[in-house]
Amino acid sequence: MPKACILIADGTEEMEFTITYDTLVRAGVSCASAYVAAEGADASSTSPPFARGSRGINILPDMFFSPQDCTPDKFDLLVVPGGATGAATIAGSAPVQHLVRRFLEEGKFVGMICAGSLAAKTAGLPKQPLTSHPSVKSELEKEFEYSEEPVVVSGTLVTSRGPGTTFPFALTLVELLCGADRRSEVAGPMVFPPHTFA
Amino acid sequence: MPKACILIADGTEEMEFTITYDTLVRAGVSCASAYVAAEGADASSTSPPFARGSRGINILPDMFFSPQDCTPDKFDLLVVPGGATGAATIAGSAPVQHLVRRFLEEGKFVGMICAGSLAAKTAGLPKQPLTSHPSVKSELEKEFEYSEEPVVVSGTLVTSRGPGTTFPFALTLVELLCGADRRSEVAGPMVFPPHTFA
Repeated sequence: MPKACILIADGTEEMEFTITYDTLVRAGVSCASAYVAAEGADASSTSPPFARGSRGINILPDMFFSPQDCTPDKFDLLVVPGGATGAATIAGSAPVQHLVRRFLEEGKFVGMICAGSLAAKTAGLPKQPLTSHPSVKSELEKEFEYSEEPVVVSGTLVTSRGPGTTFPFALTLVELLCGADRRSEVAGPMVFPPHTFA
Repeated sequence: MPKACILIADGTEEMEFTITYDTLVRAGVSCASAYVAAEGADASSTSPPFARGSRGINILPDMFFSPQDCTPDKFDLLVVPGGATGAATIAGSAPVQHLVRRFLEEGKFVGMICAGSLAAKTAGLPKQPLTSHPSVKSELEKEFEYSEEPVVVSGTLVTSRGPGTTFPFALTLVELLCGADRRSEVAGPMVFPPHTFA
């Protein structure tokens, strides 16, 4: 069973987080959400606090993020969701940046969506095709081959644009981890309107 | 500012809950999530426990559901999300059934999605157009004018099908509460792929 580590912080876009996590679980991917504390925050507790989403939904993460626990030998996929404040915390974390590089170096998948794509820049990834939320395009278009496709796959780096592209983003991750048949099996019961994502 | 009460229980489909809540907040609707305890559960605490979603995401509700606090004089919209177990708890609650009737009698909106549409049956609503998740169609098609459209508006009752139709469901609620212009303003930054929901 493939395993995914989905990062979350205060200010994470809760639709992007939830759609990705839930769709992967439906595909049989074992998911763990890992809370990235803002710089200077008290991270001494043994259990993570609620992450307050960008639109006020409080989500209890499964674990604290730690560079020792969220490694490519334990997970097949690392996901960085958007939400301006949450993405700033996650993309600004040096341990996250280090892990993004390690996952890609070891051929594991990394997903970034919306403002989460800023982690490609902060991690210093080489120039390659990428997309993001339009609001952060100007911060990425020089360093990357910027695309406006809903989902961009570049090797094992998968990027996407916003809440409205999270279903195709998550289903693309399902297809890469579990195959095209599983993607269809998962999409069917989700009842997409005709001519959308199925 | 319109106000929405979004019900949640253990087993609620977390994408349907989160997309609806978040999209309404983006439109300027004041949202409160209200936890419906399963029958026989201890509801004596003053603050609700987290609701464990159908795919394992734990969400902290804003308040306990109570027939005194979730009334049509306080809210313009009542939402029943899906997820088989959560919908069974919510649709099976006599106080919820009573409130569904009161909201509709007073011309307020009621949204039901996925298995949440079973609340139309348990509340004893009159025969009218309605949709639901295909898995519960057989329980509804005799009592209602069953439709397979992604979103069905019947007076102030709005029904929909599953996670894949939650964006058009939520955007329809935005349009009904706040107008078509607000729907467009909200949909734009969500970056839907061309030819989907915007």
